[in-house]
Amino acid sequence: MSDRHNVPVNIAAKLELIDEYWAPKIVGRINDLDVKAVKVLGEFTWHTHDDTDELFWVQRGSLTIQFRDRDDATINEGEFFVAPRGVEHCPRADAECHIVLLEPTGTVNTGDSPGALTATDEWI
Amino acid sequence: MSDRHNVPVNIAAKLELIDEYWAPKIVGRINDLDVKAVKVLGEFTWHTHDDTDELFWVQRGSLTIQFRDRDDATINEGEFFVAPRGVEHCPRADAECHIVLLEPTGTVNTGDSPGALTATDEWI
Repeated sequence: MSDRHNVPVNIAAKLELIDEYWAPKIVGRINDLDVKAVKVLGEFTWHTHDDTDELFWVQRGSLTIQFRDRDDATINEGEFFVAPRGVEHCPRADAECHIVLLEPTGTVNTGDSPGALTATDEWI
Repeated sequence: MSDRHNVPVNIAAKLELIDEYWAPKIVGRINDLDVKAVKVLGEFTWHTHDDTDELFWVQRGSLTIQFRDRDDATINEGEFFVAPRGVEHCPRADAECHIVLLEPTGTVNTGDSPGALTATDEWI
């Protein structure tokens, strides 16, 4: 991480810069964990992260994390939720939703299901 | 972490439960990192975390991170800032400020300067 990132980061301002859905951008880093901003709409893809939990923090709107083996979790504005490692899930937003993600540097957004929605790591 | 914590967490509601300053409470965990809620007012203590960065995310109010060797950082509502490992710092809030902290499980809030302000890990 370059020193240029070592300043206060306004999450809403970073989200304003994003013009595509399901394309997380790195906005900060603590140790080996990335803070990412992402806008989402519609349904993502079913996937699993075998080696890491994933934290979703809803900044605007509402996000549902669908599961195969347990009740779905609906995360409203101002709430966060941790999807446990090894548990298949699929995020869905019925209206545009703004999220902060926490996950280890190098985590692939589509987990074990790479495809068109797989994003590359990029700072904004 | 018990399953009872595996539900969406409302940060503002958790902060409402806190009735003392400089006493971080754990509200979530991702891998080996704790998400903590804390209310602060006044000046903390100068300290260093040799082995970890520390992320401050201001939910309400404004927080200044004072440094010995660089410009202070003022974090306003909706902004986060990462204090790098190994760098002595001292948080200060001139009015009540509500914060989310991210730091590894077991991190002592006062770092290398234990004292009356040293908190114990507790979930709320």
